[in-house]
Amino acid sequence: SSFSWFEGFASVFKEICNRSDKRRIIHSIKVGVALVLVSLLYLVNSMFKQIGENAMWAIMTVVVMFELYAGATLSKGINRGIGTLIGGGMGCLAAVLAAENGGIAKPTIVVISLFAYGTVATYYRLVPNIKKRYDYGFMISILTFNLVAVSGVRAEKVVEVARDRLAAIGMGFILCIFVNLFIFPIWASNDLHFSTSSKFNKLANSIQGKNKIRCFDEYFKLGSDKENHDKVGDGSASIVACKIVINSKSNDEALANHAKWEPWHGKFGLYYPWDKYLEIGEHLREIAATIISLKGCLQSPKQPPQMKRQMLKGQCDDFLLSMIWILNEIGDSIGKMEKCQTKLTINPKLQLLTLQLSPPGSFSCKVETDENL
Amino acid sequence: SSFSWFEGFASVFKEICNRSDKRRIIHSIKVGVALVLVSLLYLVNSMFKQIGENAMWAIMTVVVMFELYAGATLSKGINRGIGTLIGGGMGCLAAVLAAENGGIAKPTIVVISLFAYGTVATYYRLVPNIKKRYDYGFMISILTFNLVAVSGVRAEKVVEVARDRLAAIGMGFILCIFVNLFIFPIWASNDLHFSTSSKFNKLANSIQGKNKIRCFDEYFKLGSDKENHDKVGDGSASIVACKIVINSKSNDEALANHAKWEPWHGKFGLYYPWDKYLEIGEHLREIAATIISLKGCLQSPKQPPQMKRQMLKGQCDDFLLSMIWILNEIGDSIGKMEKCQTKLTINPKLQLLTLQLSPPGSFSCKVETDENL
Repeated sequence: SSFSWFEGFASVFKEICNRSDKRRIIHSIKVGVALVLVSLLYLVNSMFKQIGENAMWAIMTVVVMFELYAGATLSKGINRGIGTLIGGGMGCLAAVLAAENGGIAKPTIVVISLFAYGTVATYYRLVPNIKKRYDYGFMISILTFNLVAVSGVRAEKVVEVARDRLAAIGMGFILCIFVNLFIFPIWASNDLHFSTSSKFNKLANSIQGKNKIRCFDEYFKLGSDKENHDKVGDGSASIVACKIVINSKSNDEALANHAKWEPWHGKFGLYYPWDKYLEIGEHLREIAATIISLKGCLQSPKQPPQMKRQMLKGQCDDFLLSMIWILNEIGDSIGKMEKCQTKLTINPKLQLLTLQLSPPGSFSCKVETDENL
Repeated sequence: SSFSWFEGFASVFKEICNRSDKRRIIHSIKVGVALVLVSLLYLVNSMFKQIGENAMWAIMTVVVMFELYAGATLSKGINRGIGTLIGGGMGCLAAVLAAENGGIAKPTIVVISLFAYGTVATYYRLVPNIKKRYDYGFMISILTFNLVAVSGVRAEKVVEVARDRLAAIGMGFILCIFVNLFIFPIWASNDLHFSTSSKFNKLANSIQGKNKIRCFDEYFKLGSDKENHDKVGDGSASIVACKIVINSKSNDEALANHAKWEPWHGKFGLYYPWDKYLEIGEHLREIAATIISLKGCLQSPKQPPQMKRQMLKGQCDDFLLSMIWILNEIGDSIGKMEKCQTKLTINPKLQLLTLQLSPPGSFSCKVETDENL
């Protein structure tokens, strides 16, 4: 059992790996190109004369904000930009305020402002909703505030220093966005879309089992111990698929978070319903939980006599085939972004199933909520 | 139904909020203190004379590595330290190599090394296992390599610059660790421990229901529609608790990741079995999935006639009471870090349950795996 579990996991992992290895290589090369380009600001004499040591800030910007997904890069870049502006502006204010006072008052004002800004910004940074989307911006604003306010004590031209650094960061930002978004971009929105539609098929496959033998079939056959053993093996491979669906929540949320920053995706344009994807994921996780516990029931050592089981077989077969068909159908139509042509056929089928269904009817209730796509 | 769902969620959220608001304030004040202390490197004349502009790097280190959890801070700090050392060392090598050649060869070597280092390090940074623990270190090593290799083209004393910056980063590191770990530290290990033991109690409560009325009781009563409605309300509140358990995977893994960096926790000392916590979490998620789908079955509109249900009542009551008792018992003994005194009583109880249990026996199988704590 543990071996086939591993096998199932390995095959899923391999599939993911092959897809992601190619994009890993593409992403790495893009980072290399961006780093070389931004270093030219420092290496080329004519550029260095204008920008000077501030080119360092451009390099730092590129390294820090270049993420795998276009949306993640945009989100980090915009967070960094706005954080720098706010932190820099407030820092200049504090520095100017301090400069107006002489003697011991000057460093005192700086220290108090450092403490106040750091404490308040850190507090808000930890609020869950802010943390999810603006954590990085808050951190950068604290950093910039500190650097500007502190250097204001010694440097004469705080405002100029801030302006030059901001310009360097701006250059890094533009270069980063250009390389990330216009050369083989990797969209989080595509990944979320693909993963959502493939989850339907994963669930359908986990009901269906390997080799076109529905894994619930074994439940109705059952004779020798050996067959029983095979069943367990197959069952746990498809439970792995269900577990992948159940554990997809945090990944989906991260993808949706990035996808919201991505400017345009498919037919819905700027108003893409990313939250609906998360809702669909929620329902799919419920179905996966049901499948897992149903399989647990079927593998339990104590079972009703074989005759009783045979009586259920026909109805179960109908039901499972319909479920598999419906899940695949919905998954495919989401994947292709087509309006579910089969809505006319799915609805009556579901109603028929709900009517037919004998007591343990949790299956149908859940699918119904899912079907308002 | 959707209102009581919200209610259940709100109460859980409120509970978390009150606990975390206090620590949020403590953490914010700690950040403020650390920022003021590190700024003294720049503000105090005698210190500034020794450290100079490099104090900026100390400030940056504090802002970037000061995290909520002690383990997260240590992990970021050590990653940053090692990343800086490796990146800086390789950068110095590249700079020295470039400096030995004159003319056009000099910038060419720098550009090639930038591209090679950036590409290779980014590729490994994306490997899932490395990304989980060393992502930040790889990023810092790319950043440091770039800064050192590029400035080597113009600055004469690359090695001295690198050494001074490293010293500044080291000061920031020590100060950060001191404030974070020795003033009201917040341990990820405690949180993981607390959340694991409380999950047992959450599941027990979700079987038990609110107001000491076991929520499965309603299933056996069932008369008017109104009662039926109440049942749904109560059911969905406890389903929220189950969902919290099901969705705890990513949070638990993050906590375990931090906990591994924390030097000492409780009776196991340096060899704390954090991976066991993750395993237990896995089993608890399976139980939660079973409870959710069982409740789905009970709430299904089609049910067997009331008489048949009454026949099951006695056996179910016994079973559920034992389950609640066992879950609470294990949860409490994990929470208090005591060796389960009741093992002598739990084991026979479980065996009795397994024997008694009529066909749908998925419950018992799962608890058995869990009980080898």
